[in-house]
Amino acid sequence: MHYKRKRIVVALGGNALGDTLPEQMAAVKITAQSLCDLIEEGHQVVVVHGNGPQVGMINNAMSALSREDPRQPNTPLSVCVAMSQAYIGYDLQNALREELRNRGFVRTPVVTVVTQVRVDEQDPAFLNPSKPIGRFLTKEEADEQAIKYGHIMREDAGRGYRRVVASPKPVEIVELDAIRSLVDAGKIVITCGGGGIPVVLRDNHLKGASAVIDKDFASCLLAKELDADMLIILTAVEKVAINFGKENMQWLSELKLDDARRYIDENQFAAGSMLPKVQAAMDFVSSGRERTALITELTKANDALNGKTGTLITP
Amino acid sequence: MHYKRKRIVVALGGNALGDTLPEQMAAVKITAQSLCDLIEEGHQVVVVHGNGPQVGMINNAMSALSREDPRQPNTPLSVCVAMSQAYIGYDLQNALREELRNRGFVRTPVVTVVTQVRVDEQDPAFLNPSKPIGRFLTKEEADEQAIKYGHIMREDAGRGYRRVVASPKPVEIVELDAIRSLVDAGKIVITCGGGGIPVVLRDNHLKGASAVIDKDFASCLLAKELDADMLIILTAVEKVAINFGKENMQWLSELKLDDARRYIDENQFAAGSMLPKVQAAMDFVSSGRERTALITELTKANDALNGKTGTLITP
Repeated sequence: MHYKRKRIVVALGGNALGDTLPEQMAAVKITAQSLCDLIEEGHQVVVVHGNGPQVGMINNAMSALSREDPRQPNTPLSVCVAMSQAYIGYDLQNALREELRNRGFVRTPVVTVVTQVRVDEQDPAFLNPSKPIGRFLTKEEADEQAIKYGHIMREDAGRGYRRVVASPKPVEIVELDAIRSLVDAGKIVITCGGGGIPVVLRDNHLKGASAVIDKDFASCLLAKELDADMLIILTAVEKVAINFGKENMQWLSELKLDDARRYIDENQFAAGSMLPKVQAAMDFVSSGRERTALITELTKANDALNGKTGTLITP
Repeated sequence: MHYKRKRIVVALGGNALGDTLPEQMAAVKITAQSLCDLIEEGHQVVVVHGNGPQVGMINNAMSALSREDPRQPNTPLSVCVAMSQAYIGYDLQNALREELRNRGFVRTPVVTVVTQVRVDEQDPAFLNPSKPIGRFLTKEEADEQAIKYGHIMREDAGRGYRRVVASPKPVEIVELDAIRSLVDAGKIVITCGGGGIPVVLRDNHLKGASAVIDKDFASCLLAKELDADMLIILTAVEKVAINFGKENMQWLSELKLDDARRYIDENQFAAGSMLPKVQAAMDFVSSGRERTALITELTKANDALNGKTGTLITP
């Protein structure tokens, strides 16, 4: 299979970043290699990352401060998302820059854009918090956090307890013009971090929303707006599977839209995990001719692009 | 006096932002008006802001978290500077966007770029921490913070105690190419926030430095690199003065380089306050023909540009 040079939006999952700062500094090195594989092939790469653990951590830090310093009121979640974009972007852009330099690139125009994404104030997601943020906690830690901060905590797939917040759908990328200018000028842009800072529009005012937007949906919107050729969603598994974890589990190399719809009806994909990835991929693929999507493991981006692994989502 | 449409780098001082989030949300509205006055006149504006109180606050928040959660190690000052860029940029860009909309602008391409500024690891400033960050504290609070965090605290001009950190000179703006692309494309760019994330170069690696760069010096470097026509430094007073606070105090409408050098020798300008502003202005003015600088009060930018107030620094 031969691929032309493509404009690719890459969405990075949690394993691309790690949960703490030292973990992040190690993880972004591996992530940078994967992204550089694509750049070295001549592709134009735009990077989106999640921020679940990081925004939870920052929110807790700001809460801890306001308990120690009564002059500092609690910090809205939207501001914490903003801070997480710089917290992550700074590390990620430097890992990317360094890996490019190590491979002999002279120009390393990596840049992180603070990005707001508009959501609809009437989005039903505001009534049903479902997006996990922060790190996994024990039952005792979760109960303590619920009491201390008033957070909604939920058990997450047997892996422990996490705080959940509203996750409305992205409607508009506020800084799209600037992002497009940078991409068109050949820059490697890190944008829509953590799905973007969630804002709602009230007259001329953009007001922060207490929410975290799914980075896969934000990536899909970005890919459509930038008229990208491909959306690549990097995660912890090489391929999408049906009958996951069962005896008849089947890894999928290709996933057509019709089949994907059927599998979703059969509840084949876990909510908050593989489901939004498949949905974002489907949305992008169905949005225009010649648009494809790939879901694969963090380090396999280029292999998947060359047809060696991954799940290719096609019309 | 008639001014052509100019490319202007505007450096915002502490009074443009306030010390806490609610103060910031109020202050940026006034700041936005001042910036919009310039934009409405047709000038191309690039915005740099300080971050002293904010980076101190964020650093304290991250320290408070690491005391509560042993999994979170202490966060380097450079990462806190990065976070402060998004914390401030998010608010400032929205205030600017809203003010432009309120004045009938349809295109409001405001964008915040996470910006690193390289410093020299051998800069003598690393041996002599002098830049105040965080809010003003009482003697008791300062002593407590010195013990709790190991910070160096210093009495600041009779206004209380603040933490001081190293403030090396800016050498290179890492994301300059991207910033230039955006400015050339007509975007209103917020960059070099807090003087930029301080980094030192080790082989191909950019390593965060425990420092805060003076935003006036970073603004001067940016203005030179962008070949700006003018550097405007907005602060708490309308004009630069000599014999400040004395009977023979004299406000200056114009300040020629030779006079400025003499006044500096006479210790006319306070270190860490008016001195770096005058020095940054002098550096910019002496860097090329047709380059001028203005120092004036936050709300007087356009009046000063039209010769009605402010101190114009000229060759």
